[in-house]
Amino acid sequence: MNSLDIQRLMQILSRLPGLGPRSGRRLTLHMLKHREQVLRPLMDALKLADQNIQTCSQCFNLDTQNPCHICCDHKRDALRLCVVSDIADVWALERAHNFNGYYHVLGGVLSAMDGVGPEQLHIEALMKRLVNSSVTEVILALNATIEGQTTMHYLASLVQQQGIHVTTLAHGMPVGGELDYLDEGTLTAAMNARHAVG
Amino acid sequence: MNSLDIQRLMQILSRLPGLGPRSGRRLTLHMLKHREQVLRPLMDALKLADQNIQTCSQCFNLDTQNPCHICCDHKRDALRLCVVSDIADVWALERAHNFNGYYHVLGGVLSAMDGVGPEQLHIEALMKRLVNSSVTEVILALNATIEGQTTMHYLASLVQQQGIHVTTLAHGMPVGGELDYLDEGTLTAAMNARHAVG
Repeated sequence: MNSLDIQRLMQILSRLPGLGPRSGRRLTLHMLKHREQVLRPLMDALKLADQNIQTCSQCFNLDTQNPCHICCDHKRDALRLCVVSDIADVWALERAHNFNGYYHVLGGVLSAMDGVGPEQLHIEALMKRLVNSSVTEVILALNATIEGQTTMHYLASLVQQQGIHVTTLAHGMPVGGELDYLDEGTLTAAMNARHAVG
Repeated sequence: MNSLDIQRLMQILSRLPGLGPRSGRRLTLHMLKHREQVLRPLMDALKLADQNIQTCSQCFNLDTQNPCHICCDHKRDALRLCVVSDIADVWALERAHNFNGYYHVLGGVLSAMDGVGPEQLHIEALMKRLVNSSVTEVILALNATIEGQTTMHYLASLVQQQGIHVTTLAHGMPVGGELDYLDEGTLTAAMNARHAVG
């Protein structure tokens, strides 16, 4: 029914994660109605990102430069390396402004179901980075899912064999969370890790 | 924290209707991870749409041609003109494959709150289309909101002055809807418009 150009744009947009046919149509129309303010700036931003963004060969983050600006930042704490599964996790930790070491992006987690073994992740590169490095603590900041925790335990034993201290994120109540809405697992973990006040 | 190219893309995406910072980040990363399958096809589709899509000068639909393919389709019923507020409404009615006449897109609804008066809508163009036309029925297919119904009544009196029959969409139960979930207004309208079975 619609012109092919509209249909193609709709189709691509509706296949993006979190979107569907309805939001695809809505976005298509929004872009076509606001060409100067939305469509063309988006087109330009996509082009620039495609041209300039590359994967950091050290930590596998995305940046305009390789090594990325985090790996190049020599003011960071070279004793600490934080291992995450995805680039989005680097972004999340950087938004928290709390960790000041370096990162290593695995590019996923071990999953027998999805056929992801150690060789599909950047584990070899991680182990190579650790050899002759100044890193004394590897923080395994992986998701608290079964796959994330399996990967965590697998990596922990590998890294500990290098004589490096391994830590992981604490479980507990989310800040701002309400007790009543917490699942039993989180409540149990928070209770077990309780600490003295003051 | 992130490279400017990533930030700009994120910002544009997160301002799209229905999206926010979280989905903006997610989409940005998805596109950067799938350049061949997502980023570049989207870039090309945006470019083609920008180059080729224009507003139909007769009905104000969007298409690669002007007049649009609906206005050019001489197999349609020239006696019936369906007035809608938005291009998305044309798409919705076309998906239903039920209406076979022509369309007229107003480009909005009357709204004192938003400062939309008759001159901001394509009402003058509608009245010009009706003069010396073969149209015998104008279907006012506007949203069942206060603004939509205000616009409907305003247009109804204008069109009736031309001696043309004016109709509007029926109110009632949505097909597949459950009685228990219907609001009182819809239930009342459906009850009042009840009809004999068989």
